[in-house]
Amino acid sequence: MTDKASVGVVKTQYVTFRDDFFFESGRVVSSVTVAYETYGQLNGAKDNAILVCHALTGSAHAAGFNREDEQKPGWWDAMIGPGKAFDTDKYFVICSNFLGSCFGTTGPSSIDPSTGKRYGLKFPVVTIRDMVRLQKRLIDYLGIEKLFCIAGGSMGGMQALEWGATFPDSTRSILPIATSAHITPMSIAFNAIAKFAIMKDPRWNGGDYYDEEIPVDGLAIARMAGHITYLSDQAFHNKFGRRYANFEGIYDFKGMFEVENYLRYNGYKFTEVFDANTYLYVLKAMDIFDLSYGRGNLDEALSAITAKSLFLTFTSDFLFPPYQAEEIVAIMKKQGKETDWINITSDYGHDAFLLEFEVQTGLIKDFLSRV
Amino acid sequence: MTDKASVGVVKTQYVTFRDDFFFESGRVVSSVTVAYETYGQLNGAKDNAILVCHALTGSAHAAGFNREDEQKPGWWDAMIGPGKAFDTDKYFVICSNFLGSCFGTTGPSSIDPSTGKRYGLKFPVVTIRDMVRLQKRLIDYLGIEKLFCIAGGSMGGMQALEWGATFPDSTRSILPIATSAHITPMSIAFNAIAKFAIMKDPRWNGGDYYDEEIPVDGLAIARMAGHITYLSDQAFHNKFGRRYANFEGIYDFKGMFEVENYLRYNGYKFTEVFDANTYLYVLKAMDIFDLSYGRGNLDEALSAITAKSLFLTFTSDFLFPPYQAEEIVAIMKKQGKETDWINITSDYGHDAFLLEFEVQTGLIKDFLSRV
Repeated sequence: MTDKASVGVVKTQYVTFRDDFFFESGRVVSSVTVAYETYGQLNGAKDNAILVCHALTGSAHAAGFNREDEQKPGWWDAMIGPGKAFDTDKYFVICSNFLGSCFGTTGPSSIDPSTGKRYGLKFPVVTIRDMVRLQKRLIDYLGIEKLFCIAGGSMGGMQALEWGATFPDSTRSILPIATSAHITPMSIAFNAIAKFAIMKDPRWNGGDYYDEEIPVDGLAIARMAGHITYLSDQAFHNKFGRRYANFEGIYDFKGMFEVENYLRYNGYKFTEVFDANTYLYVLKAMDIFDLSYGRGNLDEALSAITAKSLFLTFTSDFLFPPYQAEEIVAIMKKQGKETDWINITSDYGHDAFLLEFEVQTGLIKDFLSRV
Repeated sequence: MTDKASVGVVKTQYVTFRDDFFFESGRVVSSVTVAYETYGQLNGAKDNAILVCHALTGSAHAAGFNREDEQKPGWWDAMIGPGKAFDTDKYFVICSNFLGSCFGTTGPSSIDPSTGKRYGLKFPVVTIRDMVRLQKRLIDYLGIEKLFCIAGGSMGGMQALEWGATFPDSTRSILPIATSAHITPMSIAFNAIAKFAIMKDPRWNGGDYYDEEIPVDGLAIARMAGHITYLSDQAFHNKFGRRYANFEGIYDFKGMFEVENYLRYNGYKFTEVFDANTYLYVLKAMDIFDLSYGRGNLDEALSAITAKSLFLTFTSDFLFPPYQAEEIVAIMKKQGKETDWINITSDYGHDAFLLEFEVQTGLIKDFLSRV
């Protein structure tokens, strides 16, 4: 994408709701701050707002640049901007950092006002439903009664789906991408590796490490496990093959293949920007998300949705296998809902929602034009 | 399988070769012990011997019981015994613990005679070719000139394949199961998680932990990562679904799904029997195995094989995707070799070679009858 189509320099905004926020678990936090960004203009009728929901390790910074000299734009910059999939000439796009994150919205790494110390593991377990309920407060605060669309990939797609079922009157459409109504047991297993890696790092110290060394190794290994799930067998072949990072070292115990070097580099780089407890919380939110929970079964959960919907999946995504969205859409079609599922052919695996811009742009533009 | 078909009580045997063993890396160990078991009788012509090669964490104990009161039989007991796939009424079956293991054959957890201490990371990096060359010494020692067959699954199948290329005159057939001529970059990535988990456990201490606490957490996490690769998406669904081990704990930070509990239990159980350095060595052997290495390319490597061959794979095995054996067999067929590939439909994933007895038994019996 060229700079021409960029939303330009954007400032992250913050709003603090100074009344009790009740979590799904029954626990309470006395005040919650939400970090968010907006792109484009809210029209007079306030009916052109699109909420974009970010994934596991994302932030409110979805498009443009936070500083003139920022090197990398927001995480979905290729999709949000003038003339792009989420066209800021037409729509008012909002992205808020979700509850429990470490990028501005209140979470385990925030200061607990009652103690003056970071919450750590004292922060309540966060669910996707909690995240959505906080987003709803932001939308209310912005004076928007009904969103035009709620879109997101991966954990962002879970939020879009949960919005549709929790606040059916609050959006005209949902666009869940590379997601499902609950993750598979295999995905839980990957998350378990990550959680064990963090919690078994001695520096994790029961989540109380903020004044000491952080559990850098545990968090790096956790991220490495994540990276496997974002790719696919074919993506690994294409990206790395069996190239050796240092061929001299093939019989050296610490010799590494390029793929190992990549995992190590990105694993440790992640520890510079992301908080270990937060990672535990967002994995937990992902694990326990089940659209059916408290709603009988998946059929009943989906029956609440009135928004028009489009589900996008990617053929090589094994973290959110396409059969999950296929099942959802089959049920919703039986229920007579306006919905569709498109399984995009891609080798990129789960990461495809962050990489396959062109095909997504066409499909999303077409979908939004029909809402 | 019933006791009737068991090979009964079997004693593990040991032989020590007291001359220098040269590793592929150029390094030398002054004496090597091999642990092995045999089942059935070697005939007068010495032409009915089948070598069975074990996988990553296996041992020489492939069939029967080492003690009258042993609870579990050898790792491939369902396949080795009177009337079974590897019929001990007909064949003399040998299984030897591979070089670098911790179950009797010399490896990093063995005592280095020159120091009186365990080798640890001073042990040379072991390759599949090294393993095969040591197995050849055992076969020579047993007075067998030409094996009837060499069979194995996973890393055992790598050995069968390497045997075929390294010692083409020494076997009439090979039977590589759920294996390939090199692992995929995605499998290297899984192994990387395991290796990092061990090496970043402070108790690992550069591999020098034998007189102190073992790196129990790192090794357990390593094993957990392995367990993911042994199953399949469908196997995870069938085995665990999204059942919660302790439903009360859904909002409890340490609450666990059954699949998490399974990984934890088996991860830590593994640390009671397996050595952490050994795990690093066998993963390394798996990572760097490439049948083509030193032989130009895969075509040339395979052209050396004269043994009749049958490759078995399993449809849901993502650790050794069936397309790998398919590629090998396509090349070998072009080379005019007597070979075949059968892709067995199974939901079990990579573990299928240890679970799909019935279908394997039929195919193996048929193959052996035609050797």
